[in-house]
Amino acid sequence: MEVGGGWKDQFANAPDVLKNQPDHRTVVWAGNVSIGGEEFVTIAGPCSVETERQLMETAIRVAAAGARVLRGGAFKPRSSPYAFQGLGLEGLKLLAKARALTGLAVVTEVMAAADAPMVAQYADILQIGSRSMENYALLEAAAKTGRPILLKRGMVATVADLLQSAQCIVSYGNPNVILCERGIRTFETATRNTFDIAGIVVLKEISRLPVIADPSHAAGRRSLVPALARSAVAAGADGLIVEVHPDPDRAWSDGEQSLTFTGFGTMMADLAAWCELRAACRSALETVA
Amino acid sequence: MEVGGGWKDQFANAPDVLKNQPDHRTVVWAGNVSIGGEEFVTIAGPCSVETERQLMETAIRVAAAGARVLRGGAFKPRSSPYAFQGLGLEGLKLLAKARALTGLAVVTEVMAAADAPMVAQYADILQIGSRSMENYALLEAAAKTGRPILLKRGMVATVADLLQSAQCIVSYGNPNVILCERGIRTFETATRNTFDIAGIVVLKEISRLPVIADPSHAAGRRSLVPALARSAVAAGADGLIVEVHPDPDRAWSDGEQSLTFTGFGTMMADLAAWCELRAACRSALETVA
Amino acid sequence: MEVGGGWKDQFANAPDVLKNQPDHRTVVWAGNVSIGGEEFVTIAGPCSVETERQLMETAIRVAAAGARVLRGGAFKPRSSPYAFQGLGLEGLKLLAKARALTGLAVVTEVMAAADAPMVAQYADILQIGSRSMENYALLEAAAKTGRPILLKRGMVATVADLLQSAQCIVSYGNPNVILCERGIRTFETATRNTFDIAGIVVLKEISRLPVIADPSHAAGRRSLVPALARSAVAAGADGLIVEVHPDPDRAWSDGEQSLTFTGFGTMMADLAAWCELRAACRSALETVA
Amino acid sequence: MEVGGGWKDQFANAPDVLKNQPDHRTVVWAGNVSIGGEEFVTIAGPCSVETERQLMETAIRVAAAGARVLRGGAFKPRSSPYAFQGLGLEGLKLLAKARALTGLAVVTEVMAAADAPMVAQYADILQIGSRSMENYALLEAAAKTGRPILLKRGMVATVADLLQSAQCIVSYGNPNVILCERGIRTFETATRNTFDIAGIVVLKEISRLPVIADPSHAAGRRSLVPALARSAVAAGADGLIVEVHPDPDRAWSDGEQSLTFTGFGTMMADLAAWCELRAACRSALETVA
Repeated sequence: MEVGGGWKDQFANAPDVLKNQPDHRTVVWAGNVSIGGEEFVTIAGPCSVETERQLMETAIRVAAAGARVLRGGAFKPRSSPYAFQGLGLEGLKLLAKARALTGLAVVTEVMAAADAPMVAQYADILQIGSRSMENYALLEAAAKTGRPILLKRGMVATVADLLQSAQCIVSYGNPNVILCERGIRTFETATRNTFDIAGIVVLKEISRLPVIADPSHAAGRRSLVPALARSAVAAGADGLIVEVHPDPDRAWSDGEQSLTFTGFGTMMADLAAWCELRAACRSALETVA
Repeated sequence: MEVGGGWKDQFANAPDVLKNQPDHRTVVWAGNVSIGGEEFVTIAGPCSVETERQLMETAIRVAAAGARVLRGGAFKPRSSPYAFQGLGLEGLKLLAKARALTGLAVVTEVMAAADAPMVAQYADILQIGSRSMENYALLEAAAKTGRPILLKRGMVATVADLLQSAQCIVSYGNPNVILCERGIRTFETATRNTFDIAGIVVLKEISRLPVIADPSHAAGRRSLVPALARSAVAAGADGLIVEVHPDPDRAWSDGEQSLTFTGFGTMMADLAAWCELRAACRSALETVA
Repeated sequence: MEVGGGWKDQFANAPDVLKNQPDHRTVVWAGNVSIGGEEFVTIAGPCSVETERQLMETAIRVAAAGARVLRGGAFKPRSSPYAFQGLGLEGLKLLAKARALTGLAVVTEVMAAADAPMVAQYADILQIGSRSMENYALLEAAAKTGRPILLKRGMVATVADLLQSAQCIVSYGNPNVILCERGIRTFETATRNTFDIAGIVVLKEISRLPVIADPSHAAGRRSLVPALARSAVAAGADGLIVEVHPDPDRAWSDGEQSLTFTGFGTMMADLAAWCELRAACRSALETVA
Repeated sequence: MEVGGGWKDQFANAPDVLKNQPDHRTVVWAGNVSIGGEEFVTIAGPCSVETERQLMETAIRVAAAGARVLRGGAFKPRSSPYAFQGLGLEGLKLLAKARALTGLAVVTEVMAAADAPMVAQYADILQIGSRSMENYALLEAAAKTGRPILLKRGMVATVADLLQSAQCIVSYGNPNVILCERGIRTFETATRNTFDIAGIVVLKEISRLPVIADPSHAAGRRSLVPALARSAVAAGADGLIVEVHPDPDRAWSDGEQSLTFTGFGTMMADLAAWCELRAACRSALETVA
């Protein structure tokens, strides 16, 4: 990273997650998967863990199509005492069972500081959701489990804000943070959020941490997901997290943006060539920064 | 609330905090202060509780100038283990001491669900900060203390999002929610945030809850605070929350937007006539909706 | 204006419209009306000039209720050859006739550089619309007519951008610019735009030009207009521009945000006391800056 | 385009630029170049035409590296009478000379309706800049020259707004519109604008018009341009427009975001493989929609 350039001043609060030398790059291991290294890693699964059948079927199918990590929400936003709050511990156990069945690593969101140790018992990676990016008590509790953290950008967080939250996790002794761009809130109404692809490029330019893309939440509509996934590969992302469901129109949450098994399979087959090209260009990608 | 008007559909998730009849209006009591009733209530104090002297001096001065509630942060964002995290329990005790000294009610932020019962022992009102507006575990814990909740709008939350979080608190059995507009994040750079005064008008039009304005965080610069405070009175807000510090340039946080004692006194003297006029127009204000 | 304060650097491109001394303030005259002086000036009228009857009736009624300037669009956005494009010259003549009838000054929008001389023959003030704030050919043509210019802030323009366009007009030899805040585009959906009241305060703090508020376009719904108008008075604006129509539900454009005659009359009666208070506080308002 | 899907309602004002059948796609010809067809087309050149030497040198170099169209501003925003306003007619003649020298087609911005016929005499494509997207008098004048129009998205325009301006051009009898995504204004400060790559995907999904990407204005920093260009290829864009200058640090405008000749050459060499892959996937890209 060249010296100078006033635009970097905004990252001064996150010294430990910036690159210190041109080739400095953190690789995060979860189970037998490494994120931020050579491989482009796809994380896939349903928004919510709903039933054993739904989860096992999805895990088998996304693994067959090339996913390396299974996602699935066991804790959902408790926006009221009456809302579906996720299966909780039961959901965590199903995720672990799906891991045993398929060999996929497991990532799931932790929503309350008190739940962090329990979630860490079952999951390989703890996800901090967009709404929680500045929930410092939660960041601390999650960091202290020692599990890798998948940190989603807040809906209105700048790139600098995201790095500051990453810095916070690192400062609690946990260097294994994966950053995730998932769209920011703007005036645009044709998509659910505005996917900030340049944010990915900036993060890869300035930070040593792996960066993945969440095209499902960015787009909000499944027809846009494959093109955004391709663009994330081209922009230099280290991986993807996408929502997949056996029957999206009956999903308990986020059905509109979930891919079907067929849609996911087609996307993964299509992505293979793009990932191969990305691998071939990797040294070029590095020197861009 | 009259039937019809498609723009109200976005509030469908917050049925219990909407007006059900034209005159339905919640008044929240904290100590001997009522918010949402006849009186325009000013909450004032430092961003952070720093020292006993700083807090007592501020409490005496803001009370003398007409404030009814003392604000002061005992818990600050723990953005790293090295950052100032507030005085914690010590800060809470100082707030209670200031209350005993001045008769002011006390509001302070709770940042972690686990702290809610302790904070509720010392404070009359629990504040949920902007970053926590969608921290559902925290909303639940705060709601269940039974204390009134001062709920700040998230930096990128819509009015509908804010009401949904209020609904969440109410659904946990706590009807005493005070809404607070504190500016939203936009592209504008001349102010820290963009103060959404029409958001206050909409909230007063559609919701039964009291609404207060935070011109300090909206503006980010103290010279703008008095004019924004006046405009909030005119827009129909039920009160204000403003930052005041004995020596803003040496404040441990948010000094640029904190008023001096003199500045606060001048503002309160100036506001008196505007509040009187507001009281005279109150029936007119009601019929606007 | 005191020296220092890095936030003012963004206004460096607009040196001629900033205050050079604490009391420097431009008063713009249009016919017998002065804007930016002691009086709070209300501009009112329909979005579009539709018929002679509609315009004369509106002019008489708004004049009776206290408006000093009549607004009305003779040229509308030609978004297609098939859309209503305004009555053009015919509309300008009707505006002049309404002026003769009522004594009101007249403001109307000029949309094309080629039309500027013709519009200047009939109107006392030329309006530059939001979409045209950075249409430099139009700014030049309008400036060179010598008529005062009512310059509306672009939907996504910063305060600094607005001042730069004002500077452009001034640099073409026309010092008589009135700035207008009319809401900016954000993610919020409860209002048409987000009324940036702090933008008004900043403009009054930093610039020597008069500043008026357009609550109709900011709100997009007539029920919000009176409260926003009051708040603009309190914030220190020099006047208002509001849409009024004999029968808003049948207006050819912007009906939802237009006040009825009764609504306008009630608002003006209500505003009188607030304007009086503003006049009493004027010296206080000045010293805020 | 399948029937249904409420999100398409927002495009109702632009019926003539939507797809009417799955394979309906407009190809725009400019000189011997077609945009929107099989080939991925790169437009390159300086922000402003400065000198004959600067332009000829740039034209030769970008042509050698694979560009098909030369860009260069002859008219610049006349933000004041003292600012550099472009070389005007002199600049247009230099562009024509560069075309004769290299065989590149030429695109340049028209800023005033009165200039449209003159610009059309020299340029193959007329550019409508971001600030002018809703300058309807200019859209009409440009449309009526019969030249293809490169229409840049306004800084705060939605995708639907952009299509409405395209519809306006088409309704004046000119079907040859090329859409250009160039970033929108958000709160993010790490980039000049936020490149809305999903906007490209939506436009390709819903509209029959070619869509190109402007990574230079989106990013505002040259180091980001190659990665954004790659991502635009992957997202399905039909081409690029990028700024290139012999000596960016001495450019009269936009130097920070201009590529050097070497930088442009490296980017084009890198892009070749991505464009080849895009061509191979083209049938797949089409079926995404």
